[in-house]
Parts: sequence; C-alpha cells; structure tokens
Amino acid sequence: MQAAEELTLARWAQEVRPSALQTMLVRSSQPGMLSLALGFPAPDLFPAAGLSVAAARVLAQDPLALQYSPPFAPLKRQVVELMARRGVECREEQVFLTAGGQQCMSLLTRLLLNPGGTLLTERLCYTGFQQAVEPFQPEILTVPTDLDTGIDVDAVEALLAAGERPALMYVVTDGNNPLGVSLSAAKRRRLVELAREHRVPILEDDAYGYFQYVDDPLPPMRALDERWVLYMGTFSKIFAPALRCGWLVVPEELIRPLGIIKEATDINTSTFTQRIISAYIEDGLLPGHLETLRREYGARRDAMDAALREHLGGEARWRSPTAGVFTWVELAEGTDATALLATALDTEGVAFFPGSAFAVGGDGYASNCIRLNFSHCGPERIHEGVARLGRVLKGAR
Amino acid sequence: MQAAEELTLARWAQEVRPSALQTMLVRSSQPGMLSLALGFPAPDLFPAAGLSVAAARVLAQDPLALQYSPPFAPLKRQVVELMARRGVECREEQVFLTAGGQQCMSLLTRLLLNPGGTLLTERLCYTGFQQAVEPFQPEILTVPTDLDTGIDVDAVEALLAAGERPALMYVVTDGNNPLGVSLSAAKRRRLVELAREHRVPILEDDAYGYFQYVDDPLPPMRALDERWVLYMGTFSKIFAPALRCGWLVVPEELIRPLGIIKEATDINTSTFTQRIISAYIEDGLLPGHLETLRREYGARRDAMDAALREHLGGEARWRSPTAGVFTWVELAEGTDATALLATALDTEGVAFFPGSAFAVGGDGYASNCIRLNFSHCGPERIHEGVARLGRVLKGAR
Repeated sequence: MQAAEELTLARWAQEVRPSALQTMLVRSSQPGMLSLALGFPAPDLFPAAGLSVAAARVLAQDPLALQYSPPFAPLKRQVVELMARRGVECREEQVFLTAGGQQCMSLLTRLLLNPGGTLLTERLCYTGFQQAVEPFQPEILTVPTDLDTGIDVDAVEALLAAGERPALMYVVTDGNNPLGVSLSAAKRRRLVELAREHRVPILEDDAYGYFQYVDDPLPPMRALDERWVLYMGTFSKIFAPALRCGWLVVPEELIRPLGIIKEATDINTSTFTQRIISAYIEDGLLPGHLETLRREYGARRDAMDAALREHLGGEARWRSPTAGVFTWVELAEGTDATALLATALDTEGVAFFPGSAFAVGGDGYASNCIRLNFSHCGPERIHEGVARLGRVLKGAR
Repeated sequence: MQAAEELTLARWAQEVRPSALQTMLVRSSQPGMLSLALGFPAPDLFPAAGLSVAAARVLAQDPLALQYSPPFAPLKRQVVELMARRGVECREEQVFLTAGGQQCMSLLTRLLLNPGGTLLTERLCYTGFQQAVEPFQPEILTVPTDLDTGIDVDAVEALLAAGERPALMYVVTDGNNPLGVSLSAAKRRRLVELAREHRVPILEDDAYGYFQYVDDPLPPMRALDERWVLYMGTFSKIFAPALRCGWLVVPEELIRPLGIIKEATDINTSTFTQRIISAYIEDGLLPGHLETLRREYGARRDAMDAALREHLGGEARWRSPTAGVFTWVELAEGTDATALLATALDTEGVAFFPGSAFAVGGDGYASNCIRLNFSHCGPERIHEGVARLGRVLKGAR
C-alpha cells in the first residue's frame, strides 16, 4: 500500500539522482575529514569584519534595505567597474543581478533552451551546469579539451559546420572547472568568431576569472563580442557564497525577459545582501581583498604543486594552472578513481572528486583522473591531504 | 539586419510579457505615488534593530556563516515551533528551507508538474503562482470562489469526479490573495478528503496565515493531513522580504528530490540570512513581533474598512477580511477597473490592482473589481488613498 500512497513526480524528476557534489558535501563535512573536493573559498579569508560594518550601516541608514525592491542600481554600476578590472567594457543596462552563479545558469538556460533542445559543452563539464539543464532533458553535444590550450575549437567548428545549432555553448574560459586550463588567446578569438558566424551564443562562466596567477592575464571572451558572448560572474568566490549574489552581462534586450523569469523563480535577489556588497565596495575594500585572495590562492596553488611532486611524483601527471582553484591530476592508466575515493574516505579521511563525476552523460570518461581544489584549505592542510592521498595510492598498488 | 542579429529565445519565453506586478512595482515607486497595490509588508514595522544585533553576532561568532552550507538545522527546528503556533504538528525532517515563498512554488511545481500538464486553481489566482508555472505551459482548470467561504469545493469535486487529475491544487487557505476570504472549516475538511480520495496534492499557500484578526483562527489544512497537503510558508511577510527565506512542509520523501532541484536552481539558500533569522528567533523576539504585526495590520484593516465606508459607501461592496492583508472591492457592474487605474495613476497618483489582473488565462473576469492592500501603508495613508480613489470614481461617473 505504501507505494500506492506515493506522490507522483514529474517524469524527469523520477530519474533524478543526488549530485556527486551534494553527496560529497555531506561526506566531507564529517569530523576529521580533509576535503580537497569542493571548490569552496577559504573561510579564513572571508571579509567578515568589513561585511559586518557594511551590514550594520545598511540596516541603520536604509529603511528599504529589508523590503522587496528592483535590482540595486549602485551595485550594477559597481559591477561595470569590476568588469573593467577584467578588461571588459560594458554598460549598466547590460548587467542583470542574480542570486549567484548557479542562478545565472538556470535563468539563462530557461530563457534560451527549449525542452529537448541541444547544447554544446566540453566532454568534462562543471556538474552544476549539467544539473541546471537536466529538467529540459537536452541533447548535449560534447567536444574534447586540450589540457594546455582549452576547448577543442576544431571540433566545435566541425559540429557547427555539420549543421548543429545548439541553444548555447557553455565554456569556462579561465581556470576551467574541472580541468584547470585557461583558453589560449587564439582559441578565444576563434570561438567568438564561430559564435558570431553561426549565431550560437557562448555562455562564458567566469566564476574564477579574478584569480589569475600570471602577470598579464587575457580578458574573457566578452571583451571580444558583446552580442554573442553571455558573461556570468559571481560574488560567491570573490566575497562569500552566503551572500547569494552574482551577475550576468548580456545584450540589453535580454534584461527584460530575464527579469520576468527571475520574478517567477524567486521574486528578486536579496535587497539586503545586494546593499551589503555595495556598501563594502563603496568603502573601497574590494581591490585589497581581491589582491589578498589572488596572492593567497597563488601560494596554495604552489603548495599543491609541491605536495604533488613530493607525494605523487612518479605516478601522476598534472599542470599547475595559471588561473582558478583546481588542479587536474591524471593517475596511471587503468586506475579507478571512484574506487580510490571510497578507500581514501575510509582509510585516510581525505576527499577529492573523481574525474568521471564531470563526464557528460555519465559515461565513465576520465575515470583515472581526479580534481583537487586548492582554495579551501591552507598550504599545510593541502600538504597533509596530498600526503594522505599518496598513502592511499601506495596502498592501492 | 537588427532582427536577424537577435538571440533566439525558448518558445515559451517568446510570448512572455512583464507581469502586472512588475509593471506596478515600477509605476508605484514614482515620487508622490500612493500605492495600495502591492502586498508589501509595512517598512515601519521591520525588526531592523533586532536583525542588526543578530547579524553582528552571527558574523562575529560563526566562521561558517559566509560559506556554502546545507540547510541550517536549528532554523528547521524553529520552523517546527512556528508551525505549532498555526496549530500544525510537523517534524524537522519534513521541513525544506527555500529562498522565499515564490521559490516554494517554483521548486514544487518543477518537481510535480510535467510540461503541458494540468493544474487546478481558483478562477482568480495569485499572479506569482501563474508566473511560476508558465514555463511548463500547463492546462489550468479553474473553479469559482465564494467570497464568504472560499473555493467552490463542489466544483472541485465535479472536476475530479469527471476524471481530471491535476498535478496539484493551489489554494490560499487564509486571507486569500486576491479575494481576502478564508476557507470555512467544512470546506477545509472536504477539500482534504477530496485530495486524499483522488490522490491529488494540495499546495497550501499560507503566506498570510500568521495575520489573523479573529480570536480562534482555524488551523491550515496541513493540520488535517500530512501527506496530501503540501504547505508553504514565508519569512517575507512576518520578518522581511529582503532576507529571502521561506519553507515547505512536505512528506519526507520529497525532501531529497527538492534538494536536488534546489541545488540545480541556486545551490543553497543564503547561509547568512538563515542564521540571522535563527539568531533573531533564538533571542526570543519573534512572538512579540508577530503580535505587533497582527495588531497593527488589524488596525489597518479597520482603517481600510472605515475609509471605504466613508469614500465609496454607496458605490462598492466589500467584506472586511478575517485574515491577511487584502480587501477585495466590487465596483458597480460595468466599471472597467483597468481603465480606472490608468486614470487613478494619472490624476490622483493612487495605485491599486484591477481584479482582472488575477484572472487565470487573462479572460477579463472580475473586470469591475479591485484589490486593495492594507499592510504597506499606515492608517492615515490608507484613508488618503481611498479618498483619492473615491474622487477618481466620482470623476469617472
């Protein structure tokens, strides 16, 4: 009788499974666990004091800070300035504020993707994007990625030349999640040309673009085209995830329909947290904070590299990324990273993401690879975590 | 050439229009406008001081207050206590925290409704619900509402007996939006029986349920059935909309799939605002605040009633609601409330909602009716607004 009493879910939801990320969040929050899995910002670097001052001022001075409200215009202007730091010129009228990066993806795909429609991504793709589009049950075309130069633009061209017209192409330009790679200058130009020529927009995910470990980073693709590149940024990584605020930079004609979808989804982005972020930026604290994050995450990237050399030197291959918060590690051919994770959790209390968790369609691709995060833990914990990983690998041989 | 350059939107989005609410938000925010239109809480009653104390403490004491995190367990327990104040027994495991009431609706319909599926609502229905379901392009079955006892349960029974099986029935049990009516005890019981018998869940919207102006209010339908009544509540009306936090109380089996959809939509509800609300409640400030709101909104309801008697006495009919924040007013047969609104905005600077804005399918139903809100403005402004409305009506005759 129990089964007969069950509520009937929508068809797509009947097949839905918890994400690897969600499962990892639960496991890695267990006491004693050392997690190199999730792409969390460093909690020790949160600007709590500055935000506390900003919050108190907002509540004391702005009687509408707790009310429903349209997007906060001063914050839009500040986003325009923030984009200029990335080498992108844009206008306030092209900025759409959201409740974070994930909502950027879910709103934009809802706007552009028909049920059963087509999308183009890399063969290994951020799980959040895969989740955002799952309710539409799309066909996802995939292309390989070169670990030195990024997405295979020849493969993209071949698909488009063959007549494929995806609703959009999803690309993480800098500090690819999960692969760590940043797109070469030539590929940025060619991808934008392809988007223009075939009228297929690029959704450019720049969640990690402010964390650059080279002196002259390239600007994102949005700097090359304001019509066919739909840019998404987030305050989650440069400020704090708990503020739930991100932004899109899109052609002005999309702002109105995005506003309608946003309202249907959750009415508006928190009036309160929009104003706190704006007040913090107004206080002039952002440039210093960004520099602190860049320097600290750079040091953690180097710690990851050194630890890998020390503990996995002979048995793994990786590149030290020039941007972002992830190092992609290839273990020996035939290694089953998912089985390795189970052992790692049980025996050493260390967590990472198996590469196949990012494989579109769950086809087991990259099953000998792992993704390691270096933003969440400090250098010592990174060393300790990689040492544990080394012991797990030794035990598995 | 301009048209050819345009991005192609998903089919449903090509037809989408700004909501009446969004348009009203823009118009009524113009200087000098007196708005009785939107269901905003009173800004003068926001608990800003208590929230400021709570925010400072959270930021000082909880290093994870700015991080991603699972739903905050203490707040779930506090929701269970809050539900008990409404006469509902539930368990922490049945509570799902969201980014507000609108997200309750958008997540639940995404979980339960197939594209092109069927829903059941009253013929006049909260626009936010209509917006939440629009991307699914559902067939919406509608039934009339009695202004004294609520939704026409005979009509619901007839539809179900005829074999209709909507994915859910959407009902505002107390302080109906837009009609102001609260469902009679007999109808609550019968509707729950119908839900059980035909296995069609009720989505019970209790956004205004804490504002009761009678001594012994009835509990919501969730008190009668924990399986077929899916309950939604929100902190937007009892605290502040800017915190973007609400909750569902649903059978435990729905919590996991809701979590997956939530993660795909916006990762998680703000860790920061969840903790601020929880800290405020922990400080014991909520019961007093709820009582203040109930008393003040009751006084504003009475002010609305008195103002209507004074300025629209001979030419309109209305009931003083026993719950919620809206008074529904029927003007003389043949009055075009939409045309009246245009005049009212232009000549007297007063805003209200024409009844037909709530008509499902936009069929012009209730075109001689208007919805007036009495929570946003204080008693004097309510009197002034209704006086302006009276002058507009006189001018229109």
